Amino acid sequence: MKTSHISTSVIKRLPRYYRFLFDLLQSDMTRISSKSLSERMGLTASQIRQDLNCFGGFGQQGYGYNIKLLYEEIGKILGIDTIKKAILVGTGNMGRTLLANMDFHSRGFEIIGLFDNKESLIGENISGLPVRHIDTLDEFCRENLPVAAILCIPRNHAHDVAEQLINLGIKGFWNFTHYDLSVAFPDVAVENVHLGDSLMTLCYNISPKN
Amino acid sequence: MKTSHISTSVIKRLPRYYRFLFDLLQSDMTRISSKSLSERMGLTASQIRQDLNCFGGFGQQGYGYNIKLLYEEIGKILGIDTIKKAILVGTGNMGRTLLANMDFHSRGFEIIGLFDNKESLIGENISGLPVRHIDTLDEFCRENLPVAAILCIPRNHAHDVAEQLINLGIKGFWNFTHYDLSVAFPDVAVENVHLGDSLMTLCYNISPKN
Repeated sequence: MKTSHISTSVIKRLPRYYRFLFDLLQSDMTRISSKSLSERMGLTASQIRQDLNCFGGFGQQGYGYNIKLLYEEIGKILGIDTIKKAILVGTGNMGRTLLANMDFHSRGFEIIGLFDNKESLIGENISGLPVRHIDTLDEFCRENLPVAAILCIPRNHAHDVAEQLINLGIKGFWNFTHYDLSVAFPDVAVENVHLGDSLMTLCYNISPKN
Repeated sequence: MKTSHISTSVIKRLPRYYRFLFDLLQSDMTRISSKSLSERMGLTASQIRQDLNCFGGFGQQGYGYNIKLLYEEIGKILGIDTIKKAILVGTGNMGRTLLANMDFHSRGFEIIGLFDNKESLIGENISGLPVRHIDTLDEFCRENLPVAAILCIPRNHAHDVAEQLINLGIKGFWNFTHYDLSVAFPDVAVENVHLGDSLMTLCYNISPKN
């Protein structure tokens, strides 16, 4: 299947489908109708049929979707079946929380290196990996070839570290800094987690409107 | 000004404008042209003019926008000028990271209570607030009237805790659980932070496409 035929708006919904299908896999169901899936997900059945028809062959009139096959196919489209090497830069609160809480492997990533610039942290073991000095980044990347980086560093370092990493072959950033990387580096993949923006949106949504 | 006249797509971009304008306020600039702002934000000047014209009166042909006035006006539209009381439920890694790293006040919120169900954590002081037992939630909410809740709890508790909080007057959730609250509770404001979905989107974007 050519994933290039799938529209961006469908792609954006894939992680959510993947999440719901994973939950269904934990039950003893093997198939699910678009109607039943739509009720669980808060979408219309027709929207789901339209989206999932893009992947072809997993829905059968009157039988519903094969949950396991659909789950696996969406995983393939998302690229999760091929584990990508990633490094994490910045082992403060946020970095540690991600390392402790996230299941990277089931989302297509393996963390292979941790970096910080604080001398006191170098050598500390977090989730089974030693914290390395940021000065050893070049050497580490040339040897181990990570393709993604998680940035949990202060905003004022974000531009320079990102530039260095792009030159070392990093193709994508999971960006927790408040610096808009994609303005400066339009050619790399950036997934921003702007927690402040999310909080302000909530503020707007619960504020009385004039 | 009636904010109901502003389209949803403009509203969605407001937190980002607010962030860039805040940075400009730290410089010694007082006005900025749509062209200059567009270059910083990676938008077109015409998009910016269109967006900001909704707020009226802050741009003047040839003079650009008054940064301070525009910043304040966007803050008002977002509702950030009226601080809202919020509680945080779940003081594990993620909850602590948010308390340590986020400036809630500048995004319109004041955290007034922390809750957990782990006996060993009750009474601990985090960022100046004591952790309270989840059993005291009803009493606390009736006395202190929070309107928003930050959920950093395991997914399997999310539904019940959210239902309890809605009955206690909570109008909006900042949701870090992987439970889709808005499917079960369509009438409350929910801002989801689905870190796993974000990571999978990054995976897709750096995967080779067939």
